[in-house]
Amino acid sequence: MSSLTTVLSRIGPADEPAMAAARSRQDRLTKPPGSLGVLEEVSVRLAGVAGACPPPLPEPVAVAVFAADHGVHAQGVTAWPQEVTAQMVANMRAGGAVVNAFARQVGAAMRTVDIGVASDLPAGPDLIAAKIRPGTADLTRQPAMTREQAEAALVAGAGVAGRLADEGYRLLVTGDMGIANTTASAALIAAYTGAGAESVTGRGTGVDDAMLAHKVDVVRRALERHRPDPADPVGVLAAVGGLEHAGLAGYLLGAAAARVPVVLDGVIAGAAALVATALAPRAVDVMIAGHRSAEPGHQAALRQLGLRPLIDLDLRLGEGTGALLAVPLVQAAARTLHEVATFDDAAVSER
Amino acid sequence: MSSLTTVLSRIGPADEPAMAAARSRQDRLTKPPGSLGVLEEVSVRLAGVAGACPPPLPEPVAVAVFAADHGVHAQGVTAWPQEVTAQMVANMRAGGAVVNAFARQVGAAMRTVDIGVASDLPAGPDLIAAKIRPGTADLTRQPAMTREQAEAALVAGAGVAGRLADEGYRLLVTGDMGIANTTASAALIAAYTGAGAESVTGRGTGVDDAMLAHKVDVVRRALERHRPDPADPVGVLAAVGGLEHAGLAGYLLGAAAARVPVVLDGVIAGAAALVATALAPRAVDVMIAGHRSAEPGHQAALRQLGLRPLIDLDLRLGEGTGALLAVPLVQAAARTLHEVATFDDAAVSER
Repeated sequence: MSSLTTVLSRIGPADEPAMAAARSRQDRLTKPPGSLGVLEEVSVRLAGVAGACPPPLPEPVAVAVFAADHGVHAQGVTAWPQEVTAQMVANMRAGGAVVNAFARQVGAAMRTVDIGVASDLPAGPDLIAAKIRPGTADLTRQPAMTREQAEAALVAGAGVAGRLADEGYRLLVTGDMGIANTTASAALIAAYTGAGAESVTGRGTGVDDAMLAHKVDVVRRALERHRPDPADPVGVLAAVGGLEHAGLAGYLLGAAAARVPVVLDGVIAGAAALVATALAPRAVDVMIAGHRSAEPGHQAALRQLGLRPLIDLDLRLGEGTGALLAVPLVQAAARTLHEVATFDDAAVSER
Repeated sequence: MSSLTTVLSRIGPADEPAMAAARSRQDRLTKPPGSLGVLEEVSVRLAGVAGACPPPLPEPVAVAVFAADHGVHAQGVTAWPQEVTAQMVANMRAGGAVVNAFARQVGAAMRTVDIGVASDLPAGPDLIAAKIRPGTADLTRQPAMTREQAEAALVAGAGVAGRLADEGYRLLVTGDMGIANTTASAALIAAYTGAGAESVTGRGTGVDDAMLAHKVDVVRRALERHRPDPADPVGVLAAVGGLEHAGLAGYLLGAAAARVPVVLDGVIAGAAALVATALAPRAVDVMIAGHRSAEPGHQAALRQLGLRPLIDLDLRLGEGTGALLAVPLVQAAARTLHEVATFDDAAVSER
C-alpha cells in the first residue's frame, strides 16, 4: 500500500501545451468561438489532465460512495436516525437508491466503500471493506479521529481511485453517505476558508429553524475547541472531519496521481476537495464541479477551489447524484474536440 | 395532411391525477422529500403528459433541426454570410456539427428539416424536404411571409412531430439553423411579451456593440411597421417570424397533440413556444426548458412560459445543443419514479 507521501509525490501540474491546443481547436470548430460556454473550459481542463488534445473520451465511468457515521450525531444535528447510514448502504447495494438510478442513467459502475459505518455491514464482492473505525468521535468533545486514522483513510481513498484507474475507468465520480455529514462538512469548510460557522452551515437534508440554529452552534463550538490550523491539513481533518471526507480527499488525490478526471458531487465532496488541495494544490486540476448544492457551505468551498458547477437544480441529496448528472456534460465537452468538424474540414464560411 | 385546426383540437390539458400520484410517490422514495429539486417537478410534468405514474421512460429520443433563411439578413444584423445556413445543414448531414456530437452523446436520432433554406439543398433520405419558400422576406420592409405560408409551416412542423411520435420516439428535442434567426426571435418575443426591442435583442452568435445597436433598431422598426397583435398569433408569425419558428411552433403543437414531451433549446425555441402557446395555451404542458441561453430574449420568453431551464452554461450556439444536454436529466427524473425504492420497500427509517 502506498503511503500518503508517495501519492502526493505523484501529483503534477496540468499540461499547459495540451490545454493551449484544446483552446485553439475549440476556436476552429464549426461554431462561433466561445459559443459552448463553460463546456469549452471543461474540454480544456480534460486536455490538461490527459496531457493530450483531444483528450481521451472520459469513459467508462465509476462512482465510489464513501459511507461513514459521525459521533456528532449525538448532538442532535439531524432529524434522521444514525442507523439510516447503514440502511441506505444496504439500499444502494440492492440498487434501490437514487444514486443507483442515476448511475444506470449515465452508464457508471458503482462501488460502495465502508470507510467508517458505525455498525458491521454484511461482506460481499459489491462492498469495499475499508473501515478505519466505526464512526468518528463527537467533534464537540474530542477530535473526530486520530491523525493516524485520518492518514489511513486518506490512503484508503487514494487506493480506491488507483484501483479504479487500473481497472480502466477514465472518469471518476464522488459519492457519499453519512447521516450528520453536513455538520462535519461545515466545520471543515469553515476551517479551510476562514468563513464563519453561520455562513457555511445549512439545512442538510432538511432541518427546521431551531435545529439549524443548534447546528450552527455545534459547528462554532467545534471550531472553538479545536482551533483547526489550515496549515496542518491532516490535523484539521482529524479534528473536525468525517471518515468519508478523509476517504474522499484521498480518492481525489489518488485520481490526481493517476491523472484521471473526477467529478465532484456537493458539499461533502467540496469539503473533501479543500482537504485534498490543502495537501496538494495542483490536485484541483483534475476536479470538475458537478453541481451546485443548495447547502451554503458548498458555495464557499467552490469559490475557494475556483470551480464553476455544471448543474444547478436545487439538489440537496448527496450520494453522488448531482455529480452523476454532470457526467454526460463532461463527455459532451470531450466529444466536441473529437467529433466536430473545423471550418476548413466542412467548407463552412467564417465571419 | 392535418389542418392546423385539427392539430389544435387534439391538444388537451395535463393529467392532474397522474401528476398528484407522481408528487406523492416522490415523497415516499428513499430520499428526503424535495431533495431532487427541479427534477421532481420534471417527473411530475412527465406524468402529466403521459397520464400515468410512473410515466414511460422518455426514450428513444429524436431531435429535429428546422433550417431556414431570413430576408432580414440583408439589413446587416449578423457577421455571418447567409450561405452559412446551407453550409451548416450540409455539415449536420455529414455528422460534423456540435448538434451531431451531442445527439450521439445522448443517443438521439437526428432529423434535418428544410423548412425554408434560401438555396436548393441536395435531396436525400436524411433530409425532410418541407420548404415553404426559399427564405423569408425582409421583415423591415414587408411581412416575412404570408398567413398561408405561416400556416403551412405550422402544419409541416406538426407533421414532423406526429411522424416521430408514430415512429416510436418518446422524447422530442427542438433544433434550429438559420443565419439571422435571433433577429426574428427578438421580434416575436417582443410582440408576444410586450417587452421593448432593446431588452430582448442580443448578440446572437456574436455581434459587436455597433451591430447590436443596429440590430435593436431593426427589431424596433419591424415592430413599428407591423404592429403585431398577439391576439392574432398567426398574423404575428407571418409579419415578423421565421420559417423555422413557424415549423418549430408546429412541432411543439404536434408533440402536444401526440402527448410526447419535448425539450426546448434556446431563444429560437423559446420564441416558437410563445407562438405555440398563443395558439394553444395547454401546449406548454408538454414542454421542458432544456437550457438558459445567453440571449436576453430567452429569459423573457421563459418567464412568460413559466418554465425553468435545466442547464445554464453560457451556451449561445443553438442547433438544439443545449436541449440535447438536458436529455439525460429528463430521463433521470423519470427513472426516479421507476427505479428508486420507497422507505417501506427498503426498510429505511424515516424522520
